[in-house]
Order: sequence, then C-alpha cells, then structure tokens
Amino acid sequence: DILARLQASARPLSEQVLQGLRVVVTAGPTREAIDPVRYISNHSSGRMGYAMAAAAQQAGANVVLVSGPTSLPAPAGVQRLDVVSADDMLAAVEQSLAEGCDLFIATAAVADYRVRLKQAHKIKKSNDELALELVANTDILAHVATRQLASYCVGFAAETRRVEHYARDKLERKNLDMIIANDVSDTRIGFNSENNAVSVFWHDGTQTFPSQPKQALASALIELIGQQRRIKIKP
Amino acid sequence: DILARLQASARPLSEQVLQGLRVVVTAGPTREAIDPVRYISNHSSGRMGYAMAAAAQQAGANVVLVSGPTSLPAPAGVQRLDVVSADDMLAAVEQSLAEGCDLFIATAAVADYRVRLKQAHKIKKSNDELALELVANTDILAHVATRQLASYCVGFAAETRRVEHYARDKLERKNLDMIIANDVSDTRIGFNSENNAVSVFWHDGTQTFPSQPKQALASALIELIGQQRRIKIKP
Repeated sequence: DILARLQASARPLSEQVLQGLRVVVTAGPTREAIDPVRYISNHSSGRMGYAMAAAAQQAGANVVLVSGPTSLPAPAGVQRLDVVSADDMLAAVEQSLAEGCDLFIATAAVADYRVRLKQAHKIKKSNDELALELVANTDILAHVATRQLASYCVGFAAETRRVEHYARDKLERKNLDMIIANDVSDTRIGFNSENNAVSVFWHDGTQTFPSQPKQALASALIELIGQQRRIKIKP
Repeated sequence: DILARLQASARPLSEQVLQGLRVVVTAGPTREAIDPVRYISNHSSGRMGYAMAAAAQQAGANVVLVSGPTSLPAPAGVQRLDVVSADDMLAAVEQSLAEGCDLFIATAAVADYRVRLKQAHKIKKSNDELALELVANTDILAHVATRQLASYCVGFAAETRRVEHYARDKLERKNLDMIIANDVSDTRIGFNSENNAVSVFWHDGTQTFPSQPKQALASALIELIGQQRRIKIKP
C-alpha cells in the first residue's frame, strides 16, 4: 500500500492515471425506512468505496463521494455527500453528474427495494404475521450508464454464487464499461473485512486480483480503470 | 455526572443501591436477516443500555450486558455477550437468567418481527414488487416477566406518540415492575443522541427526568430502580 502510494506520488502529475478528471464514487449501504424506528439495510461497511475514492483522489482526480450511512471518515481531499435512502442517493448522484463526469464508480450496496408505504408512526406489534410490501428502487448504476451521464461507468457486484455469470450479465444488461465482482459468501473478504479479492470483467478482458488490503486493491483497480478508460476514450 | 459518581463512590459499599445483586441488561438493536446480505434493523445506538449497564455496575451490581450490534465498547467491569438476532438475544438472556437474576433491565430495541424464510443466497432483483413475509419474534421482556425469571423487571418503551398510554399499557400487559418511556419522535433526545429525557411509570408511581446526558440519567434511573426494588422485595 505504502509502496503503491510512493510510486504514485513519485510519478509526474501529467502521468497520474486520473489527472484532472471528475470522478463520482458511491459507497456504503442505503437504509430504507419502514417506520420512524425500523429500516431495511445491508452489511456494506463502505470500506471498499472509501478506498476507491481515496485512490482516485491520489491518482489526480477531483472526487465526489456519495455515501450512505457508515462510520468512516471522509478521505482527505474528497468531497462527501451524505445520504440515507436509495432515493436520496439517486438525487445526490444526479446532482453530482449534472456538472459532468469522466468516471462513475458505483460501489454502494444500494437497496434494491424500498417499503411501499413508509409509516409516519411506529408500527405496533398487533399481529403474529406481517407482510411488508416492497417496491423496486431505481437502479442508480443502470440509470447513469444507460443515459450515458458519465463517460466511463464501473460497477461492483457482490455475489454469493455464480460470481462470473452474474457479473458478466450485469456488465451487459446495465451497459457498463467494467464490473468488479467479489464473492461475499467468503467471510475472509468482502463486507466488513479489511481485505478483499476481486475478479474484474470488461467487454474484451478480465483480470483477477488476489486477497489484499482494500486500500492496496483500490490503488491497483484505479490503475486498471484509468488504463481501460484511456483505451475507450482516445484523446 | 461526575458529581453523581463521586457521591456514589463516597457511599459505603453496603449502601450502594445494587450492592451484590446480579443484573442482566439488554441493549442495542437486533438484526433480522433477509438473506446473507440484507437485514431489517432499527435506529437504536445501544447508548442508553450501555449507560444503564455501567451505572448498575457502579452501583455495586454484577452486570451481564446482552448486546446487539453496536459500535460501543463494553463498560468497565461488565460482562458482555454479543448477539445479532432477536432469537440469539433470547437464547443469551435465558442462559444468563438461568443462574438467577435480581434485576432485569430490557433496553434493547428487539425486532418485533423476523423474516419467515431466510434465504441462503442473495435474493436477485427480478420483480418490481416483493412481499416480505414477517413473523413475530418472542417478546423477550414479556417472556422473562411472565415466567418471573428475574425478581424485578424494568422495560424501556420508545414511542412516537401517546407515550404514557402505550407505556402504561406495556407495564400492565407484560407484567413489568417498571417502565421507562421516551418519545423518539423528538430527535434532540433518544436514538443516537447524547442526551435523553424520560418518564418512568410503576404501579403506584411516576417520575419525570428532564433532558440530560445519558450516563447521568442512567445513574439517576438506577437509583430509582434500586429504591423501588427494595420496596417490592422487602429483605
């Protein structure tokens, strides 16, 4: 990690992979309110997204980090926008992209569903059973990629099985430039872990990164993203 | 707070309100898994419960703290049992009470419902709508109070309206000795706040505590609990 940072900082500014680019990163979970007390969320700690934001900033980018609820401090030099729900995150992302975006990196574990009718008051436990009606949230990454709101779109896929199958499917279906997949069924890596190992897929390539600290992995991923982005968007 | 602690520590051991008593405190939220990635939880930070555990320990008790997921350190001298779901918490409470309990303080925001069918793999977003079937969890506090597994039972009630009505109803219905109620619709106090203000109800009395730091409030509440417990259980 330290070596990578030294190498990056030793490099002339003009050779930094994201020099001067405007990058928007989403991170963390979202929370979907059931009532004023209860919510639906997920196990994302936000660590991988914060590491990507920090690595992008170190690679010369101007970074906006749109973050769901986490206990992490904002990386130095990164502008953070705090959000709670998937709807909040969509609004903050649209606002950030309105000023132009060279690279969109969606690491957030956005809730796929929200509760149809959010209750204004705490639901009383009056029945032995309760059916919670959920409706699909807007897929923020697909929304951005389909409308080409950013010139390069990178997604993350947290899967518990058939990782490559689902990742490649997401890459095509959401019209992404790259997808970074990890197997969250392995508790040694992924959610709430210090380390992560991923497989990266793009249209004509793939690369695997072995388990390593998230910040070191993020630096290596930003390097790869920068390279592939240059290939797509020839100056 | 400091004054209260000095007064407490200046008091001879034999006069500490919970001297030598075995106290079990529950704290924090619980998390009910939907699948390996998603869960239902609530906004409890665990702060009030941890403050109650610390105050009970300072009042001379041997304290077991059964805690859902929080980011708080265990108070000094308190034995903590970590749990995730309401079912886990029930099991840990029953185990703790099996050795006898002089005072049970239920501050945890236990999930009223769990998901009927927990999925072994991440649910794919394949529909615009999803009905999540929930079933009621065992009410841990009512379970303990009804079976008289502790000689004095104190509950907490987080309400967003008709606070006294719901609190008094809970006191009677769950067969409690005392209930401590706060209005979580006031964001200046309660969940995730440093301060709290509560109204306390028991069968033939009530007392209101104005907004103050949670640790100071906890010390005052432990004093009241100790007094009322002595009145109930004459030596």
